Amino acid sequence: MIKNALVTGGCGFIGSYLVDTLIEKGITVTVVDNLSAGTTTYLQKHIKTHSAAFYQYDIRDLDNLLSIPTNFDFIFHLAAQPDVKISVSNPQIDFEINTVGTFNILELMRKKDIPNLVFAGSSGTIYGEPDLLPTPENYPLKPISNYGAAKAAAEMYCSSFASLYDLNIVCLRLGNIFGPRSTHGVMYDFFHKLNKDPSKLEILGDGKQTKSYLYISDTIEAFTHLSNNINKGYDNYNVSSDEAISVVDIANEIVNVMNLKDVTFTFNVSGGWKGGWKGDVPNTSMNIKKVRQSGWSPKISIKRGIKHYINWLSNS
Amino acid sequence: MIKNALVTGGCGFIGSYLVDTLIEKGITVTVVDNLSAGTTTYLQKHIKTHSAAFYQYDIRDLDNLLSIPTNFDFIFHLAAQPDVKISVSNPQIDFEINTVGTFNILELMRKKDIPNLVFAGSSGTIYGEPDLLPTPENYPLKPISNYGAAKAAAEMYCSSFASLYDLNIVCLRLGNIFGPRSTHGVMYDFFHKLNKDPSKLEILGDGKQTKSYLYISDTIEAFTHLSNNINKGYDNYNVSSDEAISVVDIANEIVNVMNLKDVTFTFNVSGGWKGGWKGDVPNTSMNIKKVRQSGWSPKISIKRGIKHYINWLSNS
Repeated sequence: MIKNALVTGGCGFIGSYLVDTLIEKGITVTVVDNLSAGTTTYLQKHIKTHSAAFYQYDIRDLDNLLSIPTNFDFIFHLAAQPDVKISVSNPQIDFEINTVGTFNILELMRKKDIPNLVFAGSSGTIYGEPDLLPTPENYPLKPISNYGAAKAAAEMYCSSFASLYDLNIVCLRLGNIFGPRSTHGVMYDFFHKLNKDPSKLEILGDGKQTKSYLYISDTIEAFTHLSNNINKGYDNYNVSSDEAISVVDIANEIVNVMNLKDVTFTFNVSGGWKGGWKGDVPNTSMNIKKVRQSGWSPKISIKRGIKHYINWLSNS
Repeated sequence: MIKNALVTGGCGFIGSYLVDTLIEKGITVTVVDNLSAGTTTYLQKHIKTHSAAFYQYDIRDLDNLLSIPTNFDFIFHLAAQPDVKISVSNPQIDFEINTVGTFNILELMRKKDIPNLVFAGSSGTIYGEPDLLPTPENYPLKPISNYGAAKAAAEMYCSSFASLYDLNIVCLRLGNIFGPRSTHGVMYDFFHKLNKDPSKLEILGDGKQTKSYLYISDTIEAFTHLSNNINKGYDNYNVSSDEAISVVDIANEIVNVMNLKDVTFTFNVSGGWKGGWKGDVPNTSMNIKKVRQSGWSPKISIKRGIKHYINWLSNS
């Protein structure tokens, strides 16, 4: 039973939903977020009802984290530099937030005797370009972006810290999570491009890239399910749907939901890279047998999820 | 053909031999070392003959590394915090030297267009406690010490940087390297304990731990062989012998070489940990098929190596 949880990145897309859900379940929540990618919009109601505390701290600053006086029994670590492209153009900033930041969270656990950690990892980036699709968790890690390297590096420390200091750590290797409140990613970009000019849509790459997506409500259920079933030591799960969808099919689906007609797709392959850009993994597909066996499975189909998300974008 | 090499940790045990060998081959060498674990003793002759340049810099300081005016075509990155025990008691220092330090070396390559890197990784620590012995390179990484986590994390960045910035990187996942000039490890400790009191020897753990060792001259040959055959992108090799020896057998061998008799072995298992200490991997054995296929294989048996090393320790 979780009693007192710290959620890093609790003002972000996934984090804000997780905070809502934890508070619904009667858990006391403290949010740490530097507001680099979010606002306190979704947190305000919880602060007003004294259900959540908020610290505008940066996970790069361990002393700040250590100064929080609360005795946590769980950390949900979601704070991250989320953009693969930025990790390629600015390796240093991604390293500091995603690798050093996660190391700081582990140091916080060790120094303050916090026994449980749920870490938001990545399935889409840590395996690189795997020969085996769908890819299982024990496939060798060979990231092709610094974002993927950071998530994989962070897992290495989750493994050692869990073993050395008797911690319980589970890593959710997340696919591409989408849904309301998300303000980046291919669906978000396509919607805004089409909103601006409904006659045409430029797609990075050849559009044949197929990726593994997961709708936000399924994602939150995976977080609560795996945190309730956390075990001694370190473990990791691919958390995604086992559906995959190509970029062109995503574009077609969005065009349909937006009721557009005669949209011309153009494909920008000038980068000479088969993915959308260098560092992008062109095809991902996750083997999710392990997480299914644990008792969680996705409920919302990708197409249904796209419909919900595009309607939310249209109305917000 | 290597022309101009930077060797980090070039004053250390392995690094100093590597510098000797590179200079023998007519390669211009620059050494960066903070002298935390070595001295310039072995480098002096090369400095005097203008075969090597030396910078007492720390790999944690990227600006210092960037200030070196030489145009390198190769980096051999061996600088490290080498002690697994210290990584357990002081995770921060190990993280900064081994993870941040290696990230800095990769940033140096990216910023100064240095195309080739040979990285001294670890086979004995990155796999954790593998179910599969001998362990091949594609076995999942699950380190149980922060030293292992750092070496594994560093490899994740070697993988992403090689892919993103068109670098050629090879990681030598080294076993326990031993031989003259080494000033740490179980053989060094046993020799000094026995030198002080030849009647008894305290062994950490039950003595049944078996590990994979490699003699220094074989190690240096692996470095030169794999650097001469470096390929585009990222690759890694277990570099060890395929012999394994138990701690008790090492102790017996040292007792023999030292011509001691009636030595009482005591076993300190007070830590309750089956290895020597928490974070120590009790049994390692490397599958070295991949590196054998590349054309390198170990030549010095462990017992012959121990004899050389103990004789060197006795005479130094």
